[in-house]
Amino acid sequence: MNKHIEHCKVTAIVSCAALEKVEQRLQQMGVSGITVAHVMGYGEYSDFYSRDRNTRHARIETFTDTEKAEGIVQAIMDAAHSGETGDGIVAVLPVSHFYRIRDRSEVVLNDDTQE
Amino acid sequence: MNKHIEHCKVTAIVSCAALEKVEQRLQQMGVSGITVAHVMGYGEYSDFYSRDRNTRHARIETFTDTEKAEGIVQAIMDAAHSGETGDGIVAVLPVSHFYRIRDRSEVVLNDDTQE
Amino acid sequence: MNKHIEHCKVTAIVSCAALEKVEQRLQQMGVSGITVAHVMGYGEYSDFYSRDRNTRHARIETFTDTEKAEGIVQAIMDAAHSGETGDGIVAVLPVSHFYRIRDRSEVVLNDDTQE
Repeated sequence: MNKHIEHCKVTAIVSCAALEKVEQRLQQMGVSGITVAHVMGYGEYSDFYSRDRNTRHARIETFTDTEKAEGIVQAIMDAAHSGETGDGIVAVLPVSHFYRIRDRSEVVLNDDTQE
Repeated sequence: MNKHIEHCKVTAIVSCAALEKVEQRLQQMGVSGITVAHVMGYGEYSDFYSRDRNTRHARIETFTDTEKAEGIVQAIMDAAHSGETGDGIVAVLPVSHFYRIRDRSEVVLNDDTQE
Repeated sequence: MNKHIEHCKVTAIVSCAALEKVEQRLQQMGVSGITVAHVMGYGEYSDFYSRDRNTRHARIETFTDTEKAEGIVQAIMDAAHSGETGDGIVAVLPVSHFYRIRDRSEVVLNDDTQE
């Protein structure tokens, strides 16, 4: 068992217009924790030339088992897709170790024991 | 020497109530740089059903030598643990390359030289 | 072809004073999407002892082909370097998978096709 590939972080940059829809979709899937932060950007994320600082995007992040990442990515793309520039991106990053503070212990695959 | 495993990023999502305690602990340990951002969330991070947007969490991030990561993780968990839902999570992500802008150079293990 | 090393995330923590210069440099290089968020910090990022919460830094993030990362890192360091404490850091993190929501598809090297 390679603990280094068990978890990953899914980061999505989506338009603020799509944020609520994405959140609802993830909740319906039972995704157990997401964080949301508002960010400014340009290029893939918004209109480069207008540089309208009020055209904000939202960054959604969640940590998940690697095997669930693909489903989460597809759900985000389904919910956030409009076909227009500014739809944003989704990235999956490897996570070496993952811990739940309430349990004060590292989370390993199929291990829900608490100390 | 594999430079690709020398550094990592420690990301913690903690309750705002625990933030100051975590910061103090990290400073006492001599952690040389952290960033803090306030985020919204649900699930592991806050009460899903209330969706109280004012129940914010804080994201703490620091880049560190991989060998120091475990100690930092334990310090964050000690400082942020209450045993309740919403205590948050800690994740360690691999970093391929790490640079200090002041030195304009990549930081390699045991290398504190400046250009 | 190993898809797991094709993309990476470049994260920079720079002083707010340097932010606009860094953004301009990245735009000139044709970097196709960045996000900016304001963060608080200490240590490498700001003056630890003053703990001036108004001394904010900016976090700049962009996802890129791995082969372009080194050029982006150098451009950020050139634009953000003052030689003083608080110049900040740049880190490159591996990305396992990268998707454009507009295309609803994973981005692979030299693959600009849309569904």
